[in-house]
Amino acid sequence: MTFYAQCAAAWQRHQSMLCVGLDPDPARFPEPIRAAAPDDVLAQVEAFCRGIVEATAPHCCAFKPQIAYFAALGAEAVLERLGRWVRASYPDHLWILDSKRGDIGSTAERYATEAFGRYLAHAVTLSPYMGSDSLTPFFAHTGGGVFLLCRTSNPGGNDLQMLPLAGPDAGLRLFEKVAQQVAQRADWRGQDQAGLVVGATYPEELARVRALAPEAPLLVPGIGAQGGDLAAVLAAGRTADGGLLINASRSILYADGSAHWQTAAARAAQELAAAMQ
Amino acid sequence: MTFYAQCAAAWQRHQSMLCVGLDPDPARFPEPIRAAAPDDVLAQVEAFCRGIVEATAPHCCAFKPQIAYFAALGAEAVLERLGRWVRASYPDHLWILDSKRGDIGSTAERYATEAFGRYLAHAVTLSPYMGSDSLTPFFAHTGGGVFLLCRTSNPGGNDLQMLPLAGPDAGLRLFEKVAQQVAQRADWRGQDQAGLVVGATYPEELARVRALAPEAPLLVPGIGAQGGDLAAVLAAGRTADGGLLINASRSILYADGSAHWQTAAARAAQELAAAMQ
Repeated sequence: MTFYAQCAAAWQRHQSMLCVGLDPDPARFPEPIRAAAPDDVLAQVEAFCRGIVEATAPHCCAFKPQIAYFAALGAEAVLERLGRWVRASYPDHLWILDSKRGDIGSTAERYATEAFGRYLAHAVTLSPYMGSDSLTPFFAHTGGGVFLLCRTSNPGGNDLQMLPLAGPDAGLRLFEKVAQQVAQRADWRGQDQAGLVVGATYPEELARVRALAPEAPLLVPGIGAQGGDLAAVLAAGRTADGGLLINASRSILYADGSAHWQTAAARAAQELAAAMQ
Repeated sequence: MTFYAQCAAAWQRHQSMLCVGLDPDPARFPEPIRAAAPDDVLAQVEAFCRGIVEATAPHCCAFKPQIAYFAALGAEAVLERLGRWVRASYPDHLWILDSKRGDIGSTAERYATEAFGRYLAHAVTLSPYMGSDSLTPFFAHTGGGVFLLCRTSNPGGNDLQMLPLAGPDAGLRLFEKVAQQVAQRADWRGQDQAGLVVGATYPEELARVRALAPEAPLLVPGIGAQGGDLAAVLAAGRTADGGLLINASRSILYADGSAHWQTAAARAAQELAAAMQ
């Protein structure tokens, strides 16, 4: 099954486009998590992520661990165990490694091994800056997906992504060129393997990306704590199949710091998913 | 001391611009390394990297571990130990984490912690695609350096980096805009903290980068196994202080697979360093 087909199956099965981001920040963990293992941050990270997955799985179609949060704590082994557990326990959910890698040749092969072999990801986020041959080793994993950074939700995203192009690409901005290449070039698309990351804070630009890449799944951060407009995102990017993986992290993870943290996370996920109907 | 000043000190002290890349590939380890710990790949990685550092330190000014090679093996703890050992044993050499990270806000803070806190790097490679606020958390580490991908040595590097720009940047290509921003914008340069990655295979473009960013240290891969022209690189990018960190990995690491591997690595490093005089 191609990665595009895996996304379509996940949207259909779960009737949800919600992706729950796993950004474990020990300083914000609920009190019961800290109390259960006061001297063991890695155990806290694992228990917290498992609890969030259990609470929110009924309302989402995907989970997205952000590897920086694990790497800063030396928690790679925790992320490996979470990957094995999620893939075994929630086999119909997508497991997306947010690591924004980007390199070439034998180095890119190692990053593909890291994502697909070690962490068992269905897909991994990548930077497009190094071009097509930085994608090839990921496409070599049959069915493996990538989400290329296209239009990001931060102010500095303007610095390069909004630059207008000249010559044969006159009329396009850099982020639009990235979207166009995913739609038009086999070496940027793989076998229906390349999606795009487009922030929720710029719905007009999300609509441009959708127009240029009608079939690409779009991973959309910026809803929830970052304040993106959900209705505008849906209007701009939704397709007949679904088309969007709309990510929320902090607004779900840290909805409540008390003994009711899982209930609060479930409710936050349910409300977001319902708002996407 | 600013990162630019740290580079100048390293060039001056070692009278070398050679950076030895640590890309440990167990399939290519010399026979004595494999024989000493036949069932323990992580021990092999550590012994091999230490042996390369010991053999080549007299001839280089920097070491550059490529984190993908460690991550694919689950060898993060090995990389941590190498970092502590290199910083303690070779305090005058630069230790550059090649990880091409790139994210924003609290996530970028975690990557900065990974690079500077966990792996004790003097500098880290980053992708520029997400713009200035993806750099800010790295610049917050006083004296910490970054090397931004600018013009990479792979064929796919053309896909985005060579795109001609329109509007106020007409006449510039995307990679030139990256170089210009490092030279002109405080939020892209930090306190003399931002260098650039420019492949050795395009000396004319390296000369353009040098013209646009006269003070930025340039990290130059592509010499050695990748076939870049050293004389052309020197002519294009050298400055009065040095200006270049010219990386070689495979041509040094795997110069010989026998019991003489360290001697061969030292000789390969010495010859390259001499050719840079």
